[in-house]
Amino acid sequence: MAIRIAVAGASGYAGGEVLRLLLGHPAYADGRLEIGALTAGGNAGSTLGEHHPHLLPLAERVLEDTSAATLAGHDVIFLGLPHGHSAALAAELPESIVIIDCGADFRLRNAQDWESFYGSPHAGAWPYGLPELPGARESLQGATRIAVPGCYPTATSLALAPAIASGIVTPAVTIVAVTGASGAGRSLRTDLLGSEVMGSVRAYGVGGVHRHTPEIRQNLQSLTVEDVSVSFTPVLAPMARGILATCVAPTTVDDTEARAVYEKAYADEPFVHLLPPGRLPQTSAVLGSNAVHLSVHVDSAAGTLVVVSAIDNLTKGTAGGAVQSMNIALGLPETAGLSTVGVAP
Amino acid sequence: MAIRIAVAGASGYAGGEVLRLLLGHPAYADGRLEIGALTAGGNAGSTLGEHHPHLLPLAERVLEDTSAATLAGHDVIFLGLPHGHSAALAAELPESIVIIDCGADFRLRNAQDWESFYGSPHAGAWPYGLPELPGARESLQGATRIAVPGCYPTATSLALAPAIASGIVTPAVTIVAVTGASGAGRSLRTDLLGSEVMGSVRAYGVGGVHRHTPEIRQNLQSLTVEDVSVSFTPVLAPMARGILATCVAPTTVDDTEARAVYEKAYADEPFVHLLPPGRLPQTSAVLGSNAVHLSVHVDSAAGTLVVVSAIDNLTKGTAGGAVQSMNIALGLPETAGLSTVGVAP
Amino acid sequence: MAIRIAVAGASGYAGGEVLRLLLGHPAYADGRLEIGALTAGGNAGSTLGEHHPHLLPLAERVLEDTSAATLAGHDVIFLGLPHGHSAALAAELPESIVIIDCGADFRLRNAQDWESFYGSPHAGAWPYGLPELPGARESLQGATRIAVPGCYPTATSLALAPAIASGIVTPAVTIVAVTGASGAGRSLRTDLLGSEVMGSVRAYGVGGVHRHTPEIRQNLQSLTVEDVSVSFTPVLAPMARGILATCVAPTTVDDTEARAVYEKAYADEPFVHLLPPGRLPQTSAVLGSNAVHLSVHVDSAAGTLVVVSAIDNLTKGTAGGAVQSMNIALGLPETAGLSTVGVAP
Amino acid sequence: MAIRIAVAGASGYAGGEVLRLLLGHPAYADGRLEIGALTAGGNAGSTLGEHHPHLLPLAERVLEDTSAATLAGHDVIFLGLPHGHSAALAAELPESIVIIDCGADFRLRNAQDWESFYGSPHAGAWPYGLPELPGARESLQGATRIAVPGCYPTATSLALAPAIASGIVTPAVTIVAVTGASGAGRSLRTDLLGSEVMGSVRAYGVGGVHRHTPEIRQNLQSLTVEDVSVSFTPVLAPMARGILATCVAPTTVDDTEARAVYEKAYADEPFVHLLPPGRLPQTSAVLGSNAVHLSVHVDSAAGTLVVVSAIDNLTKGTAGGAVQSMNIALGLPETAGLSTVGVAP
Repeated sequence: MAIRIAVAGASGYAGGEVLRLLLGHPAYADGRLEIGALTAGGNAGSTLGEHHPHLLPLAERVLEDTSAATLAGHDVIFLGLPHGHSAALAAELPESIVIIDCGADFRLRNAQDWESFYGSPHAGAWPYGLPELPGARESLQGATRIAVPGCYPTATSLALAPAIASGIVTPAVTIVAVTGASGAGRSLRTDLLGSEVMGSVRAYGVGGVHRHTPEIRQNLQSLTVEDVSVSFTPVLAPMARGILATCVAPTTVDDTEARAVYEKAYADEPFVHLLPPGRLPQTSAVLGSNAVHLSVHVDSAAGTLVVVSAIDNLTKGTAGGAVQSMNIALGLPETAGLSTVGVAP
Repeated sequence: MAIRIAVAGASGYAGGEVLRLLLGHPAYADGRLEIGALTAGGNAGSTLGEHHPHLLPLAERVLEDTSAATLAGHDVIFLGLPHGHSAALAAELPESIVIIDCGADFRLRNAQDWESFYGSPHAGAWPYGLPELPGARESLQGATRIAVPGCYPTATSLALAPAIASGIVTPAVTIVAVTGASGAGRSLRTDLLGSEVMGSVRAYGVGGVHRHTPEIRQNLQSLTVEDVSVSFTPVLAPMARGILATCVAPTTVDDTEARAVYEKAYADEPFVHLLPPGRLPQTSAVLGSNAVHLSVHVDSAAGTLVVVSAIDNLTKGTAGGAVQSMNIALGLPETAGLSTVGVAP
Repeated sequence: MAIRIAVAGASGYAGGEVLRLLLGHPAYADGRLEIGALTAGGNAGSTLGEHHPHLLPLAERVLEDTSAATLAGHDVIFLGLPHGHSAALAAELPESIVIIDCGADFRLRNAQDWESFYGSPHAGAWPYGLPELPGARESLQGATRIAVPGCYPTATSLALAPAIASGIVTPAVTIVAVTGASGAGRSLRTDLLGSEVMGSVRAYGVGGVHRHTPEIRQNLQSLTVEDVSVSFTPVLAPMARGILATCVAPTTVDDTEARAVYEKAYADEPFVHLLPPGRLPQTSAVLGSNAVHLSVHVDSAAGTLVVVSAIDNLTKGTAGGAVQSMNIALGLPETAGLSTVGVAP
Repeated sequence: MAIRIAVAGASGYAGGEVLRLLLGHPAYADGRLEIGALTAGGNAGSTLGEHHPHLLPLAERVLEDTSAATLAGHDVIFLGLPHGHSAALAAELPESIVIIDCGADFRLRNAQDWESFYGSPHAGAWPYGLPELPGARESLQGATRIAVPGCYPTATSLALAPAIASGIVTPAVTIVAVTGASGAGRSLRTDLLGSEVMGSVRAYGVGGVHRHTPEIRQNLQSLTVEDVSVSFTPVLAPMARGILATCVAPTTVDDTEARAVYEKAYADEPFVHLLPPGRLPQTSAVLGSNAVHLSVHVDSAAGTLVVVSAIDNLTKGTAGGAVQSMNIALGLPETAGLSTVGVAP
């Protein structure tokens, strides 16, 4: 019998990207996966084609209300909802349904971090959908509740994890990550208008106040007994998709040693790719793919390790990570429906 | 035994897009298609990854010289070469090899048109790889020489063919088509630099001098006994991919009648999609896909039919059309490896 | 005594651009112009710097409510308000104040056109702020009510006026004009979000329904006794500023004759520049300037005249035209504070 | 008698921007400045309009060869040449001519730094055209040789100077600066093509190898006796102009103290603007202007000071800094011809 999948928040960017990936999933092509209810908030009643004209095979589907009633009866539910909406909804749904939350509600294990950055009661923590982190893949096998990581935490944790875990850096990291506008979601904000975004780069959430900061710290702290500090600055660039993260930490090792640590850490990872020496990540190379491109450098004059990573924030950074986690949870091949081939130029 | 495919001009945009599509082709996934020689001109000797970092599975492949020697021994050869290079190369290769030319050399049937627009002797005409044109699909079945249409002729011929063929317009058409920078290829020209292209729109080839003009006229003229005239203006917009063509011709019919003509013409076409009334094409909706989105309008005050079409110039406009033609020529399912799902936003 | 200027709608794009130009006006530099009240609707109470950080010298100014009370007591008032708001406001203000309306309310002379395209009662027509149209400059001298043309009517009327007035074309014109996102104003619409606009081109208002259509027709009809028809299609491109208009009409003249008509028509116009043969307009060349770049072509095979024009929609297309009209109305040098130098690349 | 100015390298981006600013200089408007020879290398013999259509008043000027013969006889010469060409040319020109070099040749005082980063013999050091650095303004008064700073050193030195000079940070700084494509000049490189740049962000010169690294370190080291270390990563974003620099250093002070240091340092600087609390720099706000926008933050959890700066790389980062230096050298008002008003959106 086919696995029935619902997507809540289907008119948003995360929901749309989950659907794009499911439409290309081999288990969808052969009927083992079915796309069931597509739900929305204010957009309920309209067709999917009005919001995502690129999803042509589903264009005529009518969006239903996001509610436990419309979502029950599925085997897997992807949630692409504003922060704070997942907990109540999940509580109304049977434990047996695999719920994969693209939102933040269940990412942080520390209640105080949650409350200080999100300003609401902590709902708890679910298995964390970043299989490449030590121990994470195992926790996802058979899981029925999964918290998909934030896009910045995905790009930066994978860039820094080998260095932190191996102890080749002092874990006082400085991160500046440049992202495209889709990272802010399909929100009606003046500062996200095309006229404001095009031809301009700007910082936001400067000074440690971005909500992904504690999540990055949590990921890195889990790899070392030393105290981790994270100075994180997100930057918005004029493009729709992509994250390029520059991650810097003090080191005393040389290029060869640093590279060896990364080669070993990611040798068997299907989606994490260490570029050959002399090549540098660019977001266009991973657009639409689940790949993570990394380059590793030692700046011996400054005494720093510099790791640059590129991901597609909507694919590996959100919906791709979600589908990868679903594959693991359901026992499907981890890479099914996910590609390392980007769309460029 | 697997079908072995070579790509000549693999470091260019057309060659790269052919490879992207082949990597996602189901016959490649199950071993019935193999990717053989990848060749280049000046870039021979370098790896594919240096030019197309998005084609990760082929990144280590070394580019060979483009020559009959390196290309012989394959079953299918895609040519992504500068205009004028295909004829000599094809003449050296056995008739039994399926050669699919993404260049212009064999598109025009009229020698005088060729000579006047390209300034060199006419090499002849091959079966034309636009299956949606009346009669074209049949001519591609079993063909071993195929001329892939130009990107503008694809976008505009499909937009206008039903109207011309049905006689609902006077065939004096005015076309303004906006394209992304990849349409000019990976050419080192100052006017294609990012600093020149971004934040600016400009016309080029104005006044009937663009080389795609006679090809559009040829396609449309094949559909009517009336004399066709084409006023075609291409416009460059700040994006990498996509064509949006606005096609206008005098008409006396109304919206309903015009729409009916298009619904009938494309009812069974897997890649041509007439948008519902009230929705308009946008290039992002077809990015990376083989889909053609159309909208049909009658401006009764001006007495004109206006058809707007959107394609991805590198996919349906080049490499997608090429793979679609290959599928037909080889007897594979026409849609194999080609999607109607775009990558957006 | 200094001329005191108020700007209503100062937090929008039109208002911001008026202020940018006034800050660079020589009469502002030497104190003959003063910038008085800056007003807004919902943004009243905030500082200008929150909305226009590029207007540094005025960053601390607090926006007042848009009302007759705050605007009275000025010598000149620029209105950058949503359509339909200017008439009531103007009625409350003394006839002696020079009111320059960047909105549409007083552009159309034909009440039926207004009602059919705007769906509200016609407020009347004011002198039309396109000095380069025959007769317009004279009507602006000493005027105290001025209707600034729409951005598309500016770009297209100047492109076509000499051809229509001289009779070298049949006045059945087809126009496709590509614009940047600021043309839609600072409106919170999903389809104007950066993620939607970047990497995509789309048509809108297709089929003669765009509100600038009757205004273009009115301008062209005033130049000929023949019946004018206008097929107008606007296209949105991924840039903030600029309009590139391709204007096509049947002709029997040749290139030389067509060019001579344009050279004569614009010989003395300070802002309209006919490019030398072989050069084509690009919007970056006019960015931030009040210049209009034109190229003129005859496509003899198609029997059409093709005129391409480029303007900055916010400068010559809105605020520059407004300041130019103010200069004429007040008896200042027409070019004061306006440049033919763009900001590029 | 008028001051005669020549621009060598007039067809490049730096030369074009110098000319744009000179055309708006009040001393040009009233005849005290004259624009004399415009010279180029390979582009000699063509008109300026072919390269810079935005500089309409100079469009018909024919470019001469770059040589001592064509440049002699001017009072001021701006050099916008490839690195390594200024020294030989300057040696052939009289000491009395004010030569303002937009290239790198005379920026570094340390010969070993020069040789290790540029691979050629050190030509020496000229007065450094960053008037806002302590002591620099004085050294420019009456100077006849001026080295214009690099764009990154301008953006980052001004961001960090007050913190380093006041001792509120440990001078181990981490900088990630995002720039537009014009920073690479008008160079025919595949990786600068529009198709490669648009829709993508990439790092380059990672690991301390970018040539601006020793210049940044030189500027900061001049402010403290402590050893300065600089980890600098440049990032290319899809826009033509602008730099946004994120500069991070360890600190123990709080927000209030840090802000006070910057308020004091820049209280009298006409071009450096500390944004009010809660506002962050964006490059569009400084586009085409000579302004530097700064924001200052303390991340107390990470123990870091984060300063974000925005400049236009071609204006304040190159040609604006050059004109500002010329003004000082000639005894003109320092701000003449330079604006703090950007062109936005």
